[in-house]
Amino acid sequence: MAQLRLALAQADFRVGDIRANADKALEQCRQAAAQGAHLVALPEMTLTGYPVEDLALRESFVQASKAALHDLAIRLEAEGLGGLAVIVGYLGHHEDRTERLGRPRGAPQNAAAVLHGGQVRSTYAKHHLPNYGVFDEARYFVSGDAMEVVRIHGVDVAYCICEDLWRDGPTMTARAANAGLLVVINGSPYEANKDDTRLELCASRAVEAGCPLAYVNLVGGQDELVFDGDSIVVDASGDVLARAPQFEEALLVVDLDLQAAAPGSPVAPDESPYPGLRIEGTAVSTDPVPAYEPRPATVSPRIADEAEVWAALVTGLRDYVRKNGFETVTFGLSGGIDSAVVAAIAVDAIGPESVYCVSLPSKYSSDHSKDDAAEFAKRTGAHYQVVAINDMVESFLTPLELTGVAEENLQARCRAVVLMGLSNQHGHLVLATGNKSELAVGYSTIYGDSVGGYAPLKDVPKSLVWELARWRNRYAEERGETPPIPEGSISKPPSAELSPGQVDTDSLPDYAVLDDILDDYVEQDRSSVELVEAGFDPEVVQKVLRLVDGAEYKRRQYPPGPKISVRNFGRDRRLPITNGWREVLPD
Amino acid sequence: MAQLRLALAQADFRVGDIRANADKALEQCRQAAAQGAHLVALPEMTLTGYPVEDLALRESFVQASKAALHDLAIRLEAEGLGGLAVIVGYLGHHEDRTERLGRPRGAPQNAAAVLHGGQVRSTYAKHHLPNYGVFDEARYFVSGDAMEVVRIHGVDVAYCICEDLWRDGPTMTARAANAGLLVVINGSPYEANKDDTRLELCASRAVEAGCPLAYVNLVGGQDELVFDGDSIVVDASGDVLARAPQFEEALLVVDLDLQAAAPGSPVAPDESPYPGLRIEGTAVSTDPVPAYEPRPATVSPRIADEAEVWAALVTGLRDYVRKNGFETVTFGLSGGIDSAVVAAIAVDAIGPESVYCVSLPSKYSSDHSKDDAAEFAKRTGAHYQVVAINDMVESFLTPLELTGVAEENLQARCRAVVLMGLSNQHGHLVLATGNKSELAVGYSTIYGDSVGGYAPLKDVPKSLVWELARWRNRYAEERGETPPIPEGSISKPPSAELSPGQVDTDSLPDYAVLDDILDDYVEQDRSSVELVEAGFDPEVVQKVLRLVDGAEYKRRQYPPGPKISVRNFGRDRRLPITNGWREVLPD
Repeated sequence: MAQLRLALAQADFRVGDIRANADKALEQCRQAAAQGAHLVALPEMTLTGYPVEDLALRESFVQASKAALHDLAIRLEAEGLGGLAVIVGYLGHHEDRTERLGRPRGAPQNAAAVLHGGQVRSTYAKHHLPNYGVFDEARYFVSGDAMEVVRIHGVDVAYCICEDLWRDGPTMTARAANAGLLVVINGSPYEANKDDTRLELCASRAVEAGCPLAYVNLVGGQDELVFDGDSIVVDASGDVLARAPQFEEALLVVDLDLQAAAPGSPVAPDESPYPGLRIEGTAVSTDPVPAYEPRPATVSPRIADEAEVWAALVTGLRDYVRKNGFETVTFGLSGGIDSAVVAAIAVDAIGPESVYCVSLPSKYSSDHSKDDAAEFAKRTGAHYQVVAINDMVESFLTPLELTGVAEENLQARCRAVVLMGLSNQHGHLVLATGNKSELAVGYSTIYGDSVGGYAPLKDVPKSLVWELARWRNRYAEERGETPPIPEGSISKPPSAELSPGQVDTDSLPDYAVLDDILDDYVEQDRSSVELVEAGFDPEVVQKVLRLVDGAEYKRRQYPPGPKISVRNFGRDRRLPITNGWREVLPD
Repeated sequence: MAQLRLALAQADFRVGDIRANADKALEQCRQAAAQGAHLVALPEMTLTGYPVEDLALRESFVQASKAALHDLAIRLEAEGLGGLAVIVGYLGHHEDRTERLGRPRGAPQNAAAVLHGGQVRSTYAKHHLPNYGVFDEARYFVSGDAMEVVRIHGVDVAYCICEDLWRDGPTMTARAANAGLLVVINGSPYEANKDDTRLELCASRAVEAGCPLAYVNLVGGQDELVFDGDSIVVDASGDVLARAPQFEEALLVVDLDLQAAAPGSPVAPDESPYPGLRIEGTAVSTDPVPAYEPRPATVSPRIADEAEVWAALVTGLRDYVRKNGFETVTFGLSGGIDSAVVAAIAVDAIGPESVYCVSLPSKYSSDHSKDDAAEFAKRTGAHYQVVAINDMVESFLTPLELTGVAEENLQARCRAVVLMGLSNQHGHLVLATGNKSELAVGYSTIYGDSVGGYAPLKDVPKSLVWELARWRNRYAEERGETPPIPEGSISKPPSAELSPGQVDTDSLPDYAVLDDILDDYVEQDRSSVELVEAGFDPEVVQKVLRLVDGAEYKRRQYPPGPKISVRNFGRDRRLPITNGWREVLPD
C-alpha cells in the first residue's frame, strides 16, 4: 500500500473569466500544498467555467484556455509547486476531427489534464457527452478516443470527467490498470429530491473499479444552474471517507492508503479494456510518499430538504447578482407570499442593506397586503419605499379606454415601469417574483410582474413556496431570530389584487391540485389520459393543459432563474410557441 | 426504361397539429392522383410538422403520430388511392434503444414511410442528425440502422431524409441497389446568401447515385424558422428537370423516364454498401406503368436576393400571426426606417386592413417623423392612430425623479404599455420593430421598444433594412404602384428621438462599419485580433465587442423573429448571460 494526501478543490470558477479562473486554480493549489497534499483535483472545465455554451465555438476562446493550461503548469513550477500533481479541467481541441460539427477549425473538447513538474503530462477528453435536459454537449464537443492512467507517487490513478462515470469505461480502465484511485472531475448541477444519487453512483463505481473513488464538483450559480459542491471520497467498498459541504467552497483534504503499483510495471495495460478506445499510461512520479501520520478527514453532514432548496435559491441569486456586476436588487413587495419569499431569499443572499423593496399599491390593493409588506421590511431591515400607481394607471386608462384584463395588466405594467425606472436610475437588478405554477399556466402579465433580470422562484411551484416560507420562519425561530416572513403573507388566500375581491382560485384550481397536475404534465410528460386515470378531474386536467400549452410565448421571454427541479422552464424544456398539439381525452 | 409520374407536395404542415396535417397530406395525395401521379413525396415530419422540439419526448405525441400514419394508409385505400405510393414523414419510435437518451420509453426517431395498398410497406429512420445551429436532433432522436429501397411500378426507389443527403449513405445505397430514383424529403429552412447550395448538392448527389434525384421541402413559417420550399428534381447528370417556386405551396408534378429493375431481381443487394447499416428492399408494386404521353414540367425561376429576403420576412410574419390565432397586428410607427419597414412587411403579409399603426410621439419626437408615420398610413391604407405619451411619461418622471438614460427608457416603456394595452383590449399581436444591429449592441430598451410577440427584423442588420426599403419601393414603382415607404423614413439620419437632437451615431459607429464588425464577430466568430488585422479601428472593435457581450440579457428576453442569416439571435447562438469572457487586444 502507498500513502497519498489528496485535495479536492470544490470551488466556484466563473464562466468565461479564464484569467481569474487560472489565478484561483493556482491559489487552490497553494492552499493544498500548504496542507501537504500530493495530488489536487479541480472541477470540470476549471479554467473556462462551466457550461461555456457557444463560447466553445470561438477559436480565440479555446486558444486562451489552452494557453492558460500551459501557463498554469509553468506558474506552479515557478512557485516551487512543480512536485504537486494537479488534475485540472479545461477547454481543448481535437485538431483532426473538424468534419462532424461542420466547422472550419479544430473541434472543441471538454478536457482534463494532469500538470506536474511545470508540464502538461497527460490529457483526457470526455467520452460521454450529455445532450439532454439543460446540456448540449454534442453541439460543442467531440468525444475523446483514449482513456488515461497516470502514476503519481507510485500509485496508478485513473481519471475521467463527470458523465463518463455513468458509463463503465472509467471503472473498466481502473480495474484493467489495477489502479489505486479513480478521480472524477465534475460540473454537476443541483436538483432537489435526487435522494443521494451522487453517493450511490460513487459507491457502486468504486466497487466496480476495485479502488477508492474521488469526486470533485463545482460550486456556485451560473445563470439557471446552481452547482452544489458535495464532493465525495469513498473507499473501495463504497464507504464514505470524506465529504465536502453543500453550496460552499471547500478544500477537501483526505489521506488515503492506496494500492501501490509494482515498481517498474507498465502504468496501463497494452490492451484497452474498452472497445474503440485506446488506453494510455503516463508515469508522472514513481517515488512513494515517505510514511506520515494521517489526519482525520471531514465528513460534512447533508442538510435537510428545505434547507437545501433554500441554499440553492440563495446561491443562485447571490452569484447572478455578484457575477453580473450588481450590488443591489429591487422588486415589488406586494404583501403576498411570492414577493415575501423572494425578499427573504434576497436578504439572505446579499444582506438587507442591499435589498430595495418597493410597495406599489393600486386602488385594488388591500390594507393587510400593504401592512404585510411594511412588516417584512421592519423585520429584516431591508429598504422600503411606497410608490402608489393610481395616477400612472389613470394616465393610460382614460385615453386608451382599457377595461377588463387590459386594465388588470395595465396595473402590473405600470409597476414594471416604476421598477425598471428605479433600476435604471439607481443601478438595482430587478427581480421577478413569479413562481413556477404561475409561469406554467401563464398566470402573470408579460412586461408586468414578469420583468426582471433574474427570477428566484422560476422553478419553485407555489406549494413549495409556502413550505419554504414556513421552513425559513421556523429556522429563524430555532435560532432565536425574528422570522422574516409576516404570518399574514403566508396564511391569506393568494390574490393578484388586480380587480375587486379577486383571488387566484377564481380562475385556477387549488394550488395543491394544480401543482400535482403540473408535475405530471410538465416534468413527467404524462398524457391527459394518464392524468385522468390517476384520478384527476377530466375538466380540470383539460383546462390546466390548455393553459400550459398556451403560455409558451410568455415563458420564452421570462428572465432566467435557478433550476431546482428535474425539468425547469428554460434550457430543460424546449417547446415551440407555434404549436398545434393539444392533448385530448377520448370521447 | 420505365415511366413514372412523380408529385412532390411542397406544402406547409403545422407543428403539433397531427390531425390537420394528416388531412392535408391526404388532400395532397388526392390532388396528385387527380393529376395521374404514381408516386407522391411529402416533406420531412409531414404528420407532426417540423421541428417539433421537446414534443418528441412526449409519448402520447409519438403515439398519435404513429396512429396517424397507419390511419392515413387506410384512408388512402378507402378513397381508392391505395395504388398510389406515398412517401411521408412522421415521428416514430425505436423501441429497443432507450438507454442512450436516458428515457424510460421508446426512443423517438425522425422517420419516413412508404404507404401503399392501405398499408405501411417500408419505414426509414434518419441517420444523420443535425445538432448544430438551430438544430437539436441528437437531443431527441436515435439514428436509423437501415437503408431502404422500394420497388414502385418496377422502379427501385431509394429514399432518405434531409441531412442524410450530406453524407454518402443514400447515394451509395442508390448505386448499390442500381436504383432508378433517389427521393429526399426535407425540412430545410431558408438562409440568405446561400447561393444555390441546395441545387449544387442535389446535382452532385444525383451524379454519385447515378440516377435522378427528387428533393421535396417544407414551406412556411414556424417560430424563428422559415421554410422556403424550392423543391427540385434533377436528372442523373444533375440537370434540373423541375423546380417549385420559393415560399409558396406547390404540387410539383414531373414525368420521369427511369431505369427499370430487372423483373424478378432482388430489390436491394444482400450486402449493405454502407458499414454498420443494414440495407432493406421492399417490392411495393412491380408492374410497370403503361406507356403514356409525358407532360412538360414546371421550372420556376429563382427570385432575386432582396425579393427572397422580403418573401422570407413576409412568410415568417404571416404564418406566426395566422398559426397563433391572431388576425391583426399593432406596433409603434415612429417615422423611422425600422418601423416603416416592419409596417410594409405587415401590410404585405396580412393586408392593410389588419395592420394597426400607432404613432406615439413624445416631446422629443420631430415633426418630420410624425409626418412620415402619417404618410405611410396614407400610402398603404393601414389603420393609423396617434397617442401622445407626454402625460404618461410625466406621471412617472416627477414622482420617481428619473433622469438621463432612465428618462430615455421611460419613454420607450410608456409606448410599450400603450401598445400592450391596445393589444389586450383589441386582440392585436404586438410587433417589435428593432433590427439585428440594435439587438447585437443592446441599443434598445428592454420592456420598451423590445416588447412584442414577434420581431420581423430581428435577424436583419440595419444596412439591409435600408436596402430592403429601397428595394420594396422600387418594386412598387416597377409595377406602377405607390411606393409604401416615405422617402423621409429612408433618407434621414437614424435616431431613437429619446433626447433632444439625439442621433444613433452619437453612441454607435456608422452602421456600415458596425454591421461589418457584427458580421465578423457574431456570425463568423472572429476574434478581436482578426478584426484589427482586417483593418477595423482597434478602439471601435473593442467598443462594439463590449456592447455585444454585455447585451446578452436583453437578447434572452427578446421575442422570436424570422431567421434569414447563417446565425440568428435565437436557437442559433447560445451564450451565457453570466460571462466573463472579453476579447482583448495584445498591448
